Amino acid sequence: MIINEMTEQECHEVLGRSRFGRLGCSLGDEPYVVPLYVACDSGFVYSLATRGQKIEWMRRNPKVCIQIDEIKSATQWVSVIGRGCYEELAEPQYADERIHAKKLLGKRPQWWLGALGERQLKSGDELIEPLFFRIRITSVTGLRATSATDQSAP
Amino acid sequence: MIINEMTEQECHEVLGRSRFGRLGCSLGDEPYVVPLYVACDSGFVYSLATRGQKIEWMRRNPKVCIQIDEIKSATQWVSVIGRGCYEELAEPQYADERIHAKKLLGKRPQWWLGALGERQLKSGDELIEPLFFRIRITSVTGLRATSATDQSAP
Repeated sequence: MIINEMTEQECHEVLGRSRFGRLGCSLGDEPYVVPLYVACDSGFVYSLATRGQKIEWMRRNPKVCIQIDEIKSATQWVSVIGRGCYEELAEPQYADERIHAKKLLGKRPQWWLGALGERQLKSGDELIEPLFFRIRITSVTGLRATSATDQSAP
Repeated sequence: MIINEMTEQECHEVLGRSRFGRLGCSLGDEPYVVPLYVACDSGFVYSLATRGQKIEWMRRNPKVCIQIDEIKSATQWVSVIGRGCYEELAEPQYADERIHAKKLLGKRPQWWLGALGERQLKSGDELIEPLFFRIRITSVTGLRATSATDQSAP
């Protein structure tokens, strides 16, 4: 297996087609990692959630990390790490961005169930207001593993 | 889809059979998330790496988070989050634990290639000394999603 660093453009290509990743946030230097449905566009990672630990933490410390991977096998994978800043798409300031996020995320209605189901579990609430946010990606790095067989292929 | 909180025992069962997860660490309240091969045993998550950002950061701030999931579909999944403390298995203090880690991790030699390949990429070094560490899990939480079909099944 050979591991190569990816270019920034290659990293953004992976982000661009990703639908799922892991979000890291931290508070008081305690890290917290959660799985997250995402839609990426033009250097931003969009997602939605209801209020909970990750939202509370990101409001207090907007520094976040998103990790995306595509794994074919133990020797064929890519892993991209994006660092960035949390931006809550609250109205009226982010009205346009919120519409854009809804449009991107609305392509996969199943996602909403996940974010809202979790909230329902915690609150027993019937009326749930989803919260849209995005991560402004400020830097990306990535690694690509290829097996020796791939390398020798024409 | 229905989402239920998992018991501590259920969370540890997921950790116990996990082979791969995402590790979160942080420094200066900047989070960092990386994929990681793991082997869990008796409340510890064992892994190996070579020196790099995650090791440097965990040495300086041992508070870590490990996220493990098992995803069958968008409506059938479990996600477990373990919080814990980084312990580097340096000799002579952790000689026994290091042997235990090698035994657990040695069952999947492919893993070593990943950790060592990454190091080789960065150093061009031919002789690489793997670094074993474990995470002492101090608390776990987990969510399980089941589809309505599963729920109504006998």
